[in-house]
Amino acid sequence: MKPHPGMHTFKELQKMVNQQIVSQQLVHEPLELYEPIEYALSSGGKRLRPVLVLMAANLYTDHIEEALMPALGIEIFHNFTLLHDDIMDQAEIRRNQPTVHKKWNANVAILSGDAMFIKAYEYLLYYQGYNLQQVLKVFNETALKVCEGQQYDMNYETEEQVGEAAYLKMIGLKTAALIAGSLQIGALIGGAGEQEARRLYDFGWNLGVAFQLQDDYLDTFGNPEVFGKSIGGDILADKKTFLFVKAMEKAGADQKEELSSLVGNKELDPQEKIDSVKQLFRNLGVGDLTHIQAEQYYDKALREMDKVQRSPTRKAHLLDLADQMMRREK
Amino acid sequence: MKPHPGMHTFKELQKMVNQQIVSQQLVHEPLELYEPIEYALSSGGKRLRPVLVLMAANLYTDHIEEALMPALGIEIFHNFTLLHDDIMDQAEIRRNQPTVHKKWNANVAILSGDAMFIKAYEYLLYYQGYNLQQVLKVFNETALKVCEGQQYDMNYETEEQVGEAAYLKMIGLKTAALIAGSLQIGALIGGAGEQEARRLYDFGWNLGVAFQLQDDYLDTFGNPEVFGKSIGGDILADKKTFLFVKAMEKAGADQKEELSSLVGNKELDPQEKIDSVKQLFRNLGVGDLTHIQAEQYYDKALREMDKVQRSPTRKAHLLDLADQMMRREK
Repeated sequence: MKPHPGMHTFKELQKMVNQQIVSQQLVHEPLELYEPIEYALSSGGKRLRPVLVLMAANLYTDHIEEALMPALGIEIFHNFTLLHDDIMDQAEIRRNQPTVHKKWNANVAILSGDAMFIKAYEYLLYYQGYNLQQVLKVFNETALKVCEGQQYDMNYETEEQVGEAAYLKMIGLKTAALIAGSLQIGALIGGAGEQEARRLYDFGWNLGVAFQLQDDYLDTFGNPEVFGKSIGGDILADKKTFLFVKAMEKAGADQKEELSSLVGNKELDPQEKIDSVKQLFRNLGVGDLTHIQAEQYYDKALREMDKVQRSPTRKAHLLDLADQMMRREK
Repeated sequence: MKPHPGMHTFKELQKMVNQQIVSQQLVHEPLELYEPIEYALSSGGKRLRPVLVLMAANLYTDHIEEALMPALGIEIFHNFTLLHDDIMDQAEIRRNQPTVHKKWNANVAILSGDAMFIKAYEYLLYYQGYNLQQVLKVFNETALKVCEGQQYDMNYETEEQVGEAAYLKMIGLKTAALIAGSLQIGALIGGAGEQEARRLYDFGWNLGVAFQLQDDYLDTFGNPEVFGKSIGGDILADKKTFLFVKAMEKAGADQKEELSSLVGNKELDPQEKIDSVKQLFRNLGVGDLTHIQAEQYYDKALREMDKVQRSPTRKAHLLDLADQMMRREK
């Protein structure tokens, strides 16, 4: 489908976001507060969420300038959540760089994270439209969902068995909510009504869940040359992914015991652990199940997009991006 | 001065705030995220900042209902800053209760703090007035100042000597900014124009600095039976108070050496340390200097209040409160 002429591609919007970020004067006194913010924001990333804000706005208007600063606000918020999550998860590396709490310390990471969150609101407040309050309420609700998702994720770390429904709810809150909220906010800024913006939210929620399930799949079964991260990271970190959740559901008594003995085992050779868990996952067919589940969510997302009252030429770039998100690697 | 009949006293407003807090449904799933918020909010406190919001609104309108939820937002924000500060300062007790990171853990305190901050915005967004954006901008700027103040405070912990100007700037940001911002926000919600609301801000800033200086003074020279906290806590914690800053400025070489040898000394008997530092402070006259400085800021606050375009009968309760804040103990 040939896109409408006023529409921008992912690459164009990504460039626009990156240029805008670079042009911001983020660092001033006290440096310990602001340098980590610039550090976190300048360390790259796909800028997926701000681009989604802009693409959703672009569905309704050719003039997306008004959405640019709020889009940056969403990116700043996203990086704030990563910053605080990295403290909680004791992660040492983010985007091939030391995390903020490693480069500085935990106190700096807590406080500059807080300041970053305030900055996110500051950028959203550049928006002057009649529906500012509505936009901010969506942002607020979304932000709270992301916190809830992170809390469930932390809770599940110490629970032996997590059900499928609970897992899907958790990734919905932790990952899909912000993708959904970005689209909803973009639509509202672009001029969409409340119901229409809600359709973008539903599209984004389903896309986001599909995206995370795909991520779970690729982290274990992806092609290391194409997938950005090294394969098996989730297994080594004993993460409760969809693969693991389904494996525990499908496993017989013996397999359950084997899987339980592998989880948390720090003595095994890393590659051996990855291979053993992968083999177990293969025997149980959970790779395919994850893949099928991701496809179902993606189909649901596309059906939600069908309800969106815009022409196919307007929707083309956003659907392209969704397709790219799902087809990154097989 | 007899107050205007539509005006509310501190006690009335404090009761209103407390009743409103109790009536909120703050706890739901996941409990680890929301229980600490209720715990922090229900642990008391004077509710000074939300009362200031309401008093400032009350200067301009008899109908202060519209300011009540934003006032709660300010109180939630204040408690959020305490929650995160307590992690950073490794404080174990707050208002005679274990701090959140002690009762739960640091991760819970970080994340429920973040959620609390989002809640603060949620409450501010109850406000529907024409100047919502302005109110939120003031809140945002204020919140950022509080973070800057906390960062300077942490920086000063490791600096041997802190100048008077730097110290006054720090307490301005960390303590006075929120008192000032509360008044400014209340005035804006009550219907004050931008310039007039700014006068309330200036009143609050000077009052806030005076209040903190008074706090520094009382923590060392207060009457333990009247002052809520035990005397000498700042000395034991090696805090850089105004007393300390002035002492380092006034001290001769010998006294400087003595003070330096007392700071950070963990082997001394606590009461002995308090007595020695107090004696040194007395010899240098820094108690009086602190007291004089506090009075100067208070006078400045009163002169700012003179510029506020409201009748003395409207101002009476707010001036009463300011007086109480300054005269709590001598």
